[in-house]
Amino acid sequence: MAPDVVTMDKIVALCKRRGFVFPASEIYGGIANTYDYGHYGVLLKNNVKAEWWRAMLQDRDDIVALDSAIIQHPRVWQSSGHLAGFSDPLVQCLGKCKKRYRLDHLQEAAVEAGEDPALVRCPTCGGELSEPREFNLMFKTQIGTVEDTASTVYLRPETAQGIFVDFKQVLAISRKKPPFGIAQIGKSFRNEITPGNFIFRTLEFEQMEMEFFVPPAESTEWYEHWKQARFDWYTELGVRESHLRLRPHEDDELSHYSSRTADVEYLFPIGWSELEGVADRGDFDLSAHAAGAKTKIEVFDEASGERYVPHVIEPAAGCDRATLAFLVDAYDEETLEGGDVRTVLRLHPRLAPVKVAVFPLVKKDGQPELAKEVRDSLRRVGQTDYDEAGAIGKRYRRQDEIGTPWCVTVDHQSLEDRTVTVRDRDSLEQVRVAIDDLPSLFAGRLAERWTSPKGD
Amino acid sequence: MAPDVVTMDKIVALCKRRGFVFPASEIYGGIANTYDYGHYGVLLKNNVKAEWWRAMLQDRDDIVALDSAIIQHPRVWQSSGHLAGFSDPLVQCLGKCKKRYRLDHLQEAAVEAGEDPALVRCPTCGGELSEPREFNLMFKTQIGTVEDTASTVYLRPETAQGIFVDFKQVLAISRKKPPFGIAQIGKSFRNEITPGNFIFRTLEFEQMEMEFFVPPAESTEWYEHWKQARFDWYTELGVRESHLRLRPHEDDELSHYSSRTADVEYLFPIGWSELEGVADRGDFDLSAHAAGAKTKIEVFDEASGERYVPHVIEPAAGCDRATLAFLVDAYDEETLEGGDVRTVLRLHPRLAPVKVAVFPLVKKDGQPELAKEVRDSLRRVGQTDYDEAGAIGKRYRRQDEIGTPWCVTVDHQSLEDRTVTVRDRDSLEQVRVAIDDLPSLFAGRLAERWTSPKGD
Repeated sequence: MAPDVVTMDKIVALCKRRGFVFPASEIYGGIANTYDYGHYGVLLKNNVKAEWWRAMLQDRDDIVALDSAIIQHPRVWQSSGHLAGFSDPLVQCLGKCKKRYRLDHLQEAAVEAGEDPALVRCPTCGGELSEPREFNLMFKTQIGTVEDTASTVYLRPETAQGIFVDFKQVLAISRKKPPFGIAQIGKSFRNEITPGNFIFRTLEFEQMEMEFFVPPAESTEWYEHWKQARFDWYTELGVRESHLRLRPHEDDELSHYSSRTADVEYLFPIGWSELEGVADRGDFDLSAHAAGAKTKIEVFDEASGERYVPHVIEPAAGCDRATLAFLVDAYDEETLEGGDVRTVLRLHPRLAPVKVAVFPLVKKDGQPELAKEVRDSLRRVGQTDYDEAGAIGKRYRRQDEIGTPWCVTVDHQSLEDRTVTVRDRDSLEQVRVAIDDLPSLFAGRLAERWTSPKGD
Repeated sequence: MAPDVVTMDKIVALCKRRGFVFPASEIYGGIANTYDYGHYGVLLKNNVKAEWWRAMLQDRDDIVALDSAIIQHPRVWQSSGHLAGFSDPLVQCLGKCKKRYRLDHLQEAAVEAGEDPALVRCPTCGGELSEPREFNLMFKTQIGTVEDTASTVYLRPETAQGIFVDFKQVLAISRKKPPFGIAQIGKSFRNEITPGNFIFRTLEFEQMEMEFFVPPAESTEWYEHWKQARFDWYTELGVRESHLRLRPHEDDELSHYSSRTADVEYLFPIGWSELEGVADRGDFDLSAHAAGAKTKIEVFDEASGERYVPHVIEPAAGCDRATLAFLVDAYDEETLEGGDVRTVLRLHPRLAPVKVAVFPLVKKDGQPELAKEVRDSLRRVGQTDYDEAGAIGKRYRRQDEIGTPWCVTVDHQSLEDRTVTVRDRDSLEQVRVAIDDLPSLFAGRLAERWTSPKGD
């Protein structure tokens, strides 16, 4: 395998060409840093979410699910600190263009360019800049019909707070005691000044967050557990270990609520970047909401007979970032015998948008009819494609580009002995299989452990 | 089976008690008509969505998926007509309380009470009411950091427009030609003045919408197809036909964009209410966006050599309403021998939050260990529960209430011959099954056709 051939431009182009992801509202000129997921993108992302749920719920006994509202009571954000603190320092151009910028970003750029960061001016029109003021990243809107401050609400900037706010309720209902977790997948919104890098940072994005509540004395044990478990989730889904790392935060990087955090980072073409953070949040959040809501949020420990506020270990992943990492890690260009280069997504079969594509070798002699019968027999295995258009080699390439692990071809012999060829996306090997054996063959393969042919 | 015992109060109480659904932000006093889904609610709703995707994508070849952004370019809503027309007539109290009301609702209430609708006054404080003015139902927010009108954007009030806006893009990428559809599941937001009836109408809600694009001459055929297909989707998932109907809209009910619409309605305890609408939208939407975006949105017909604007048949379902209907339809109270009454959710096994619950009969003699081993062997079948707390009868009741179709009990004999009892939720029959046969038994049952024991 050659050194990494993948670039962000290639990924963006492939995503657009095959309809994984493309700019939103494009016929109206688009909207800043907002993307829509097309057919294969939705299938891929749904698979990412399904694997996360599987790891959190189906394969464990100590986590329950939650889906809390995007628009919560405004006092949630007062207690959490987001109203006061979730902000960036902005300066506005006092010259012609009146644009606003993140001051820290302008200063960093000046330092990089060998200039004096104190003398920064407007990068658009050269105008003088205002004093910095804090700009809150939460989107504001009005609920009800009276536009006064009482009805101002916010789009959540993270799903986590919905979990903390509902903790007491879940504790009472779920028959669980710490250590146990609450998991949630959902959209969050941040009015970012400098989003970018495709779907790496967008105005609206999907989070997969889990808050794990533990007795304080067990927080180190669970912090170590979740760091490893979340790292392993990516590698078990095929991400190469050489492109994945756990990086502990330096003291000056830590959020005010966290005593320790480690990021799971992936080596994107833009460099090592965060996929998710595993943070020890202590009792910060539950205590903040207990104070804000003037209620007690405690757990009774039967052994000691005492009440305590659980500590929280949080693995917080970005679903769009994970999807991007799976795409990048799977991307490959392979030179074939004869010199042709094929683009192939070497996705884990469980993540692949389409599991099996079925083709008739030629569009006659009863082959399309039999191929459709084969495809129908595979519908319960997972998402299938049927394609009869163009040369067979071109059809293989189309499936390679979207990462379909297996292509089934019905040929002349199939009509005689009800066997077909099964082509493997990665090895390009073709084997002859009886039609009746296909469903169990593929179901078995999907349940198997899988490692990337790109190596570790 | 007795006549319907279900009331909305019973459903709300069960949902709260078992953590399917409960009021959002409750420790802060809640937020109007907003709900959070708890563990079993998330599992149930995820299953509803998975069944919709399966019906749209996995079992067909003529539909592709989309996930468009919640915040689109503001001109989307100008073209669609939502900025000008998506509004309700509101009056404000000129007396003490200053509250706002839907004028039409106040007038309807007056007529029902035998009063003169022209003399309506504030129902809260009796004050005089203002002239009505139009109030737009879209939530507004600001994007970027400059709070002028150029940056005003809206939370989508429906997912459908994202599909129309992306139609041209999808047509170019997907290699599909009409008749074909684009399907989407996602959150929408409406600043409703009078939401209510639990999760039937809420400020934020999840839609499952599919826009099916057809040659104009085929619109009647596809309108009929989709009415029937969507009706059948509910009955195949166990909803009784006696509680489901297709109701064509009267001429004066039709939206301005639709020449014909039929609602799939369910007989809720609050009466017949809409689950989804199947509408013939003609070429209204594509033409409106073509005009608004100053572009052509057309399809080339190879047979006639002409270009045309496809017509649209839209089945638009509410995911929360569907979930509520499945809950209501499944709810049952059964008087057992001995006079005890059990509450049971007779959910379709594929919709049931938990597929199999595993119990040791007693918490000793190696039974918990074997029961856990059995549970582990079933993790790949679907969501499982393990419960060892309390009397076995109580554990069965807990699973009945959440609709678990099968309970597996490990007893004394199990340790000798590796067999267990499998109890059926609906018939209460118990059969003895070898542990090794359980995974294929349940996988087979989940793939089978199922009809509700409550009848049609």
